[in-house]
Amino acid sequence: MEKIAIGFLGCGNIGCGVYKLLETYGAQIEANEGVSFEVRRILVRSLGKKRALPIPGHLLTDRAEEVIDDPQIAIVMEFMGGEEPASSYMIRALERGKTVVTANKMALASRWTQIVATAREHQSGLYYEASVCGAIPIIRAINDSLQANRITSVMGIINGTTNYILSRMSREGASYDEVLADAQRLGLAEPDPTADVGGYDAAYKLSILSTLAFHRHVPVNCVYREGITGVTPLDVQCGKEFGLTLKLLAVAKEENGVIQARVHPTFVPNAHPLASVSDAFNAVYVDGHACGEMMFYGRGAGDMPTASALVSDLIKAGKNKKHPLPAVCAEPCVMADDWSCVHFVRMLAKDEPGVLSYVSGKFAEHGVSIASMVQKGARDAQGCVQVIFLTHKASERAVRKALAEMDDEKVAQGSVIRVEGE
Amino acid sequence: MEKIAIGFLGCGNIGCGVYKLLETYGAQIEANEGVSFEVRRILVRSLGKKRALPIPGHLLTDRAEEVIDDPQIAIVMEFMGGEEPASSYMIRALERGKTVVTANKMALASRWTQIVATAREHQSGLYYEASVCGAIPIIRAINDSLQANRITSVMGIINGTTNYILSRMSREGASYDEVLADAQRLGLAEPDPTADVGGYDAAYKLSILSTLAFHRHVPVNCVYREGITGVTPLDVQCGKEFGLTLKLLAVAKEENGVIQARVHPTFVPNAHPLASVSDAFNAVYVDGHACGEMMFYGRGAGDMPTASALVSDLIKAGKNKKHPLPAVCAEPCVMADDWSCVHFVRMLAKDEPGVLSYVSGKFAEHGVSIASMVQKGARDAQGCVQVIFLTHKASERAVRKALAEMDDEKVAQGSVIRVEGE
Repeated sequence: MEKIAIGFLGCGNIGCGVYKLLETYGAQIEANEGVSFEVRRILVRSLGKKRALPIPGHLLTDRAEEVIDDPQIAIVMEFMGGEEPASSYMIRALERGKTVVTANKMALASRWTQIVATAREHQSGLYYEASVCGAIPIIRAINDSLQANRITSVMGIINGTTNYILSRMSREGASYDEVLADAQRLGLAEPDPTADVGGYDAAYKLSILSTLAFHRHVPVNCVYREGITGVTPLDVQCGKEFGLTLKLLAVAKEENGVIQARVHPTFVPNAHPLASVSDAFNAVYVDGHACGEMMFYGRGAGDMPTASALVSDLIKAGKNKKHPLPAVCAEPCVMADDWSCVHFVRMLAKDEPGVLSYVSGKFAEHGVSIASMVQKGARDAQGCVQVIFLTHKASERAVRKALAEMDDEKVAQGSVIRVEGE
Repeated sequence: MEKIAIGFLGCGNIGCGVYKLLETYGAQIEANEGVSFEVRRILVRSLGKKRALPIPGHLLTDRAEEVIDDPQIAIVMEFMGGEEPASSYMIRALERGKTVVTANKMALASRWTQIVATAREHQSGLYYEASVCGAIPIIRAINDSLQANRITSVMGIINGTTNYILSRMSREGASYDEVLADAQRLGLAEPDPTADVGGYDAAYKLSILSTLAFHRHVPVNCVYREGITGVTPLDVQCGKEFGLTLKLLAVAKEENGVIQARVHPTFVPNAHPLASVSDAFNAVYVDGHACGEMMFYGRGAGDMPTASALVSDLIKAGKNKKHPLPAVCAEPCVMADDWSCVHFVRMLAKDEPGVLSYVSGKFAEHGVSIASMVQKGARDAQGCVQVIFLTHKASERAVRKALAEMDDEKVAQGSVIRVEGE
């Protein structure tokens, strides 16, 4: 069987994982799928570096053009990460008619329009299952299994680091800083954890997922983003008392052509399938008109799960004569400037007669109706108490406005966590 | 765009669902996927019957040959259910070079070898995502996303009726008969519920899933099968006390080329993702060498979820130039004649000095080691007490042998529920 020549951009742990899977399963893939691959060239940063696998030295190069300009290489697999130079390399490969298989959510989300347009113009293949949630075949589910649906919402736990941190905070009552330090020690969080804990990583992935689900390009800068750095053990604990589990949720919904896409700490009811997704696991929950509610669960990161997705894309790319491109409408998306959900409000309020009436009056003034209220603990040195409110479904903007006024009037300071999935 | 002519075999609720999805999403599918379909002929049992949708009368026929022998029909969609005449119709369509898209797990599992061989011989397409777990794209996940893996186990809640019954028994402490009667009233169980509660439906689906996962044909008569009719509220309650949730689980594992495939009531630890799959939902849990643990959750039955899967197969069939066939090795599978798991044993034993020592001695004699034991309630009129044992991982055969001897010696009668996922 004729072997398809492939090139790697990058050869860290994921690249080594792909190399290993092709060694292990190459014969099985050839027998079952009728395609066969040969790694022809691998771009590395340092030729001399010791790698997880013994990769023959003649495959390695530190010159990108030896991969992206080699006319014999039909498929370029990219796992360098980062926006540049990965994006430029991918675009150049696509311009040369090569198929690109990538795990790079950052490059893809940041440069979506340009990368997809290049692939379209040159009729080149573009495959990116591994860019969102590792081994979980969520992109194929949306693209290839749910076409006869109007997808109304996509909600996911799509960042393993933050889910690990929140799971441990929830189990142990530990503080954010404590668990983060542990996660860093264990290699589950980066020395600079901003991309994960700030919600940036999840926002990239949500941009890709919502673009595919709603057939409209949802740029990453249209994704509302709030990280988990402000989450306190008290939030987690109070949520528990209301039967809620705290997650960093990526939420995208479409209604009447208007899209909301947001990443923020979110409470989900304990009975919701997303609530039991713990530690470094990921899950994406999809709701569609015909299919109903679905959830896809698995290892959202890690070298071998990501490599597993990359090789499945490689096989698909190798078998396809024509390469499908994302079915995205050319019109720009219309983003919601407000959304409605249940709000969990933790508030520090003066413990004085009339304050509760003032607070509930202020909420009512803005059309926010209270579902339940509970006071936590005793008054502090400043004469304030913690009060938790759960609202009925209410406008985000109205809740924020009410809280801003209470703060301005120096009566109460509130912080908000949204509730989804009830 | 040229329309692909399709024919339906059957037009009950699922057939009407497919018709409706093609009406609703036809234009979107044409725009996004580049394929277009036209329903040319529909086989029905009775031409005059009132249907869920107003389907033009000229499409209907009560003569199967007008669908399966029509040279203009390229794709035959089958949703008659049952082994015959569905199998014969599908085989005839395949012999005529037509592609078959089916939701019929019974026909497919019972006649697997013949149907697949016919498709292979005539290079005809065969698509059956809808035959297992409705909208959940589990067959594609296994076939198209996890090729670079050795799948070691597949465990699923793949029958909605039994999961509904067990969920309610667990929530309400109700008896099997009570909940079954309710389910029948609600249309969630058939008047003759045997196919569901006896585990037959799950066995068909497990035969298909395990065949694909392990690349060896696992015939449905090689699937060990035990239904839920013997499950008591006491089992459910005792399991709860051990932190276990009762499910009808379909379990398939592969080790050193030997396959076990079994459907039986099974306890799973509450923290396992399968434990929180409630009511009529389905979920399939897959473990593979590279991908790690994954779970696919959704509506495993119902007209629209099933229709959603059928249309996604139809699109795939319409786009494919070459039709992939299941990558199943020709060698017959080697089935395990025993398996090892934790056993939950509920036992009615004489409340006499020495009995506990006899029981634990008998288990030890057969190499079965006890992890915990608890006596439930007081002695009954016959002087017997209920005792629950949880074993360490032990051979199924050894546990059964020990219990048979205790029964023969008239000391204790035990019933077994397996525990998986710990």
